[in-house]
Amino acid sequence: MSRSILAAVAVEPGVTALREVALPEPDPASGLLKVEITGVCGSDWGFYHNLPKARGAVILGHETVGVIDRAGTQALQRWGLREGDRVALEEYVPCGHCEFCRTGEFRLCEATDWRRGGLRYGATPLDVAPGLWGGYAQYQFLHPATVFHRVPDRVSGRHAALALPLANGIEWTYLQGGAGPGDIVIIQGPGQQGLACVVAAREAGASKIIVTGLGTPTDRLRLDLALRLGAHHAIDIEEHDLLETVADLTGGHMGDLVIDCASGGTQSVVSAVQLARKRGRIILGGQKRKPVPEFESDQVIAKFLTVKGMRGHSYQSVELALELIAEDRHGVTAMSTHGFALADTDRALRTLVGEGEAAAVHCTVDPWR
Amino acid sequence: MSRSILAAVAVEPGVTALREVALPEPDPASGLLKVEITGVCGSDWGFYHNLPKARGAVILGHETVGVIDRAGTQALQRWGLREGDRVALEEYVPCGHCEFCRTGEFRLCEATDWRRGGLRYGATPLDVAPGLWGGYAQYQFLHPATVFHRVPDRVSGRHAALALPLANGIEWTYLQGGAGPGDIVIIQGPGQQGLACVVAAREAGASKIIVTGLGTPTDRLRLDLALRLGAHHAIDIEEHDLLETVADLTGGHMGDLVIDCASGGTQSVVSAVQLARKRGRIILGGQKRKPVPEFESDQVIAKFLTVKGMRGHSYQSVELALELIAEDRHGVTAMSTHGFALADTDRALRTLVGEGEAAAVHCTVDPWR
Amino acid sequence: MSRSILAAVAVEPGVTALREVALPEPDPASGLLKVEITGVCGSDWGFYHNLPKARGAVILGHETVGVIDRAGTQALQRWGLREGDRVALEEYVPCGHCEFCRTGEFRLCEATDWRRGGLRYGATPLDVAPGLWGGYAQYQFLHPATVFHRVPDRVSGRHAALALPLANGIEWTYLQGGAGPGDIVIIQGPGQQGLACVVAAREAGASKIIVTGLGTPTDRLRLDLALRLGAHHAIDIEEHDLLETVADLTGGHMGDLVIDCASGGTQSVVSAVQLARKRGRIILGGQKRKPVPEFESDQVIAKFLTVKGMRGHSYQSVELALELIAEDRHGVTAMSTHGFALADTDRALRTLVGEGEAAAVHCTVDPWR
Amino acid sequence: MSRSILAAVAVEPGVTALREVALPEPDPASGLLKVEITGVCGSDWGFYHNLPKARGAVILGHETVGVIDRAGTQALQRWGLREGDRVALEEYVPCGHCEFCRTGEFRLCEATDWRRGGLRYGATPLDVAPGLWGGYAQYQFLHPATVFHRVPDRVSGRHAALALPLANGIEWTYLQGGAGPGDIVIIQGPGQQGLACVVAAREAGASKIIVTGLGTPTDRLRLDLALRLGAHHAIDIEEHDLLETVADLTGGHMGDLVIDCASGGTQSVVSAVQLARKRGRIILGGQKRKPVPEFESDQVIAKFLTVKGMRGHSYQSVELALELIAEDRHGVTAMSTHGFALADTDRALRTLVGEGEAAAVHCTVDPWR
Repeated sequence: MSRSILAAVAVEPGVTALREVALPEPDPASGLLKVEITGVCGSDWGFYHNLPKARGAVILGHETVGVIDRAGTQALQRWGLREGDRVALEEYVPCGHCEFCRTGEFRLCEATDWRRGGLRYGATPLDVAPGLWGGYAQYQFLHPATVFHRVPDRVSGRHAALALPLANGIEWTYLQGGAGPGDIVIIQGPGQQGLACVVAAREAGASKIIVTGLGTPTDRLRLDLALRLGAHHAIDIEEHDLLETVADLTGGHMGDLVIDCASGGTQSVVSAVQLARKRGRIILGGQKRKPVPEFESDQVIAKFLTVKGMRGHSYQSVELALELIAEDRHGVTAMSTHGFALADTDRALRTLVGEGEAAAVHCTVDPWR
Repeated sequence: MSRSILAAVAVEPGVTALREVALPEPDPASGLLKVEITGVCGSDWGFYHNLPKARGAVILGHETVGVIDRAGTQALQRWGLREGDRVALEEYVPCGHCEFCRTGEFRLCEATDWRRGGLRYGATPLDVAPGLWGGYAQYQFLHPATVFHRVPDRVSGRHAALALPLANGIEWTYLQGGAGPGDIVIIQGPGQQGLACVVAAREAGASKIIVTGLGTPTDRLRLDLALRLGAHHAIDIEEHDLLETVADLTGGHMGDLVIDCASGGTQSVVSAVQLARKRGRIILGGQKRKPVPEFESDQVIAKFLTVKGMRGHSYQSVELALELIAEDRHGVTAMSTHGFALADTDRALRTLVGEGEAAAVHCTVDPWR
Repeated sequence: MSRSILAAVAVEPGVTALREVALPEPDPASGLLKVEITGVCGSDWGFYHNLPKARGAVILGHETVGVIDRAGTQALQRWGLREGDRVALEEYVPCGHCEFCRTGEFRLCEATDWRRGGLRYGATPLDVAPGLWGGYAQYQFLHPATVFHRVPDRVSGRHAALALPLANGIEWTYLQGGAGPGDIVIIQGPGQQGLACVVAAREAGASKIIVTGLGTPTDRLRLDLALRLGAHHAIDIEEHDLLETVADLTGGHMGDLVIDCASGGTQSVVSAVQLARKRGRIILGGQKRKPVPEFESDQVIAKFLTVKGMRGHSYQSVELALELIAEDRHGVTAMSTHGFALADTDRALRTLVGEGEAAAVHCTVDPWR
Repeated sequence: MSRSILAAVAVEPGVTALREVALPEPDPASGLLKVEITGVCGSDWGFYHNLPKARGAVILGHETVGVIDRAGTQALQRWGLREGDRVALEEYVPCGHCEFCRTGEFRLCEATDWRRGGLRYGATPLDVAPGLWGGYAQYQFLHPATVFHRVPDRVSGRHAALALPLANGIEWTYLQGGAGPGDIVIIQGPGQQGLACVVAAREAGASKIIVTGLGTPTDRLRLDLALRLGAHHAIDIEEHDLLETVADLTGGHMGDLVIDCASGGTQSVVSAVQLARKRGRIILGGQKRKPVPEFESDQVIAKFLTVKGMRGHSYQSVELALELIAEDRHGVTAMSTHGFALADTDRALRTLVGEGEAAAVHCTVDPWR
């Protein structure tokens, strides 16, 4: 007789319900994860409002930390894991065979694109067998192609759940942005991504880290956290002229690397180009959902800039993130601000976007509470 | 008694006059070049119309090929040259001491910025001693910081004068754009730069080279030349849908590298982003003199694109250009289409921009004819 | 009732026997390839003499080209393939989950190391189920983790079987060696690898390609082929002083890139260091099975050399190889010199190492002849 | 009437004499530096013993810090400096025009090679006009091609004199070795170079830094300093098995980057290859003056290692070094251990090589004491 487990199922836009779901039996190539805790990602918000209508009920959540409960022999051999191993998962379920997977960029794999019917943890409907595709549940299915990272026992689950957001910061700032000793790094937007970029820039030895934000209470608290995490300066761009302030703070040098983590407004793309020093690099991470009307391509030419679009993390950046977290380098674990029980998944999601408790940076859901 | 030589002096916007100019005596650190021939660059057109008014009379022309006529002992030792050596010059007179000069990117040196009073061949007024700063003259002054490239005797002057425009193509396509075996390269705009990019892409082993242009008679002739130089396909974008055609020609792969060499219209920046494949690279080379209103930064993010602004050449690209020219690889010397006498400098300049004889690609001025 | 197929089974050192082997039924995650043809690799020789004794009977051969005969639905979906698709395989059966697999370097995956019991096509004993691990057979098992490359119908099987050796040349010369326009490339050893490097250097636009070999009849024929494939010079190092000749041929420039493809003798490591220009790169590809007694580390320092050890190919290099072969670029298909029937597998192996017909470069075995 | 100044002139092997030397008048393109202090470099020792015999009397010393005393207008303009500016010099007097100078690698410029008669501070004889080529003197000549770095007033001269040795560490470890977050860096040899590598690895965010040395009193003191500068482990290789200890300390991972800073013995080249992890990098910095008899090129191949020979610093690394020193990052200024008066130059030189006071790391000579 099959056992059943508890899951927070997103049943309609903006609403989850606690449900009992049958626990599947894994085949030789797959497995089951006993979820310990799952982080709340900004992208969950979109899925929360769109997926139930478009695709039907879904278990959200993909920043999952847990323990291999059971898995097929073949699975364990290929994964290099054993039952009882503690792991953090990535959201991707890559095919493993396309040019992107074979060249180390599995996040670009078409099979991970949920819009085209690809599998993705936290975004695959309950009616795709075996259903347990999300982290806001007591157990999560382990597809043969799951991307695993080991988590040392000494790291708390709440902290380990920071692995993916911190990995984004490491990917954008260090691995792709090339931050290092001597660099002045300017980070626009002090949300989860921006703060992760601060930690990464600090770790990579950047000489000066400047973070920008708005004058809202939330941003003010986040800018304070940025300073505690190692930023040298925080600028409220509603109160200060951005370009002038950066010119002052850098002796006119401006940014060797400018990272746009601000979502929504297109102005930060324009200012990224203005803030970059000759021969500088720009990482675009914040999506705008509209064209940028004042993009100065001539400035990109005149200053020999390199502009890279970036989304998500690589295998290497998640490994580096977990290493940073394990040693609480730069006080990174302070980014974990709120924990919720499974029954409070709705509140966890709303808190992240500022509709619940104030000033959340990173929230987690514990399915056993 | 000082000798005098002939020069075509730009005396007012759009007008040059043949003048006698006194030949200076070089000091131990400088020298004089006996000009053999000088190419006409697109940037000359701007100088031709702006400099005489803004700065006074000026000898234009900076794609200079000639022979070291005489130079100080100290100069020759530092340059590693002897009197009688045949050389091509770059337009830059870099300081040699700033961070850009010391790290191999002297074209970014502030001292080369004529807008800030920097010295630059072909853009420094006659009243800056010793006056002979341009190539449309029988002799050109050799500043101690001149950038030299040796030219083998077997190469005709007309062909050697292609060194700088071809170097741009090599710099953008190969050294910065990273074109190589397996790459599909799309080049927007079939002018001097675009054609140079075709040759460079060919040389670097690109698998497929696609060039785009308009339906004008000039562009039609240039697209034909592109095909002769090794492009696999030429697209008249007034007649064909650009995206569809490229999708057809590449089996949906699109461009690994897209180079925008089109000047003026901003649409080619937008289409560059559309034409690039996931993980592709874009080189922006064509200046627009206005913002790009429909720039899709979200596409840059979604496709993990890298966009680089690029202007001019490096030392290495000029060396490679001269090597290509010396062996007439890919029939590159066919880019040299028109030669003029010094007295016809005005006509040479107008021809390049399509106001003179039709379908010029590269023009030269011979100061001894 | 299970069908059986023919295979050339290596039963004792240096001896294969034609055997009937039962055709297994693939599970949902695996498949069967109907082998069209399989190339003979230099590494087969070692397996041929060591594996039967050390591991028991084995079907050798890993440069396999064939058609997906049947495969599980799950397998086809993950592979992105259909029954009937024509493919070339790599020898590796990577785990897909380790740091090397996840970062695009699956050839470094521990699971591919047959010495540690890893699976590898052409080197896995018959008694490891389901047995059909090699290409010298009518059918080959397709493990879920197989690395596939599509082969266009217009390419002959014999030519497609060049994919792996040519990929080595592309990997070493272009992707890792960075050969490109302007480079002088010196290739030591004119065997399969060295000739593949010639083709790759040619394709990548190298300015001058010099190949070295011995005075043996075999090397003489191979050096001739090197010249036909695009090398500019071939040097018999028994007849000419190597350093002097290269100095002459390059005007004292020496090699920007030196590739050691010579096996056995350590002298070519020493000469690689001598042949490299200041700031040059060296690729070590030829294994020596003993230390190099005269390695001049001070020369590596004095000339700022970069020395890379290299073995095998990457996904990208095999794709590029197949593209080159499909267009017979630089006459690369001339490298395919000998074809054998399955019953002649012993002769094929001996021919490759010069014990059979003279001057083989690349041999193939056709299991249906 | 010309003024004269004091200099410590190396007059015969291992002997300097305090001499009065006439102060030259700089021409428009050159200048004079009032020396504040000059560091003692390991390479001085060789010059000290060889140059006087081979070339005649010479003022040694090239790690010079001082103030521009006077200079020609042309010189100041090209240098971007003013009289009174405080600077640190590099030892190189590059030509500025060769392919190496033009591409940012002026340390490879032939004109800096004193063996071929090139100019080099601290290694150019007194009889090459104007004689003041070394830092162990009250004034030093400033050739037009001198490489300058600005030194902030708040940094003591003694500390600023660390710029070049620290720059070597930054160049080898970070800029060329690519050390960064997550890397395990192993540094063989705890001398000036090795300690500078420790600081650089720390600054670049390396996860684990291991330094090796001998059991001598000097090395013991240096290994202690290495730990204070941020190394995580120090190994006395006379007491512990090197490979086993590193395997233990790294959980079998071994080194991502291994730097050989040990001079003389060839064993450290062999162990560098053994210590490097698969896909690791090796920097060879320590010269051996003999071949390495047990170099395992097959290991370089089997582990896909990259081995780079490295000497000296680049412009960028010296800038980064001065930035680190100005903030005393990681306590780097503790590397400055001994200061001497000009009259004690002989003692300063002997102290550095362990023939004077014990356990010197970096010594300086103050020409005004």
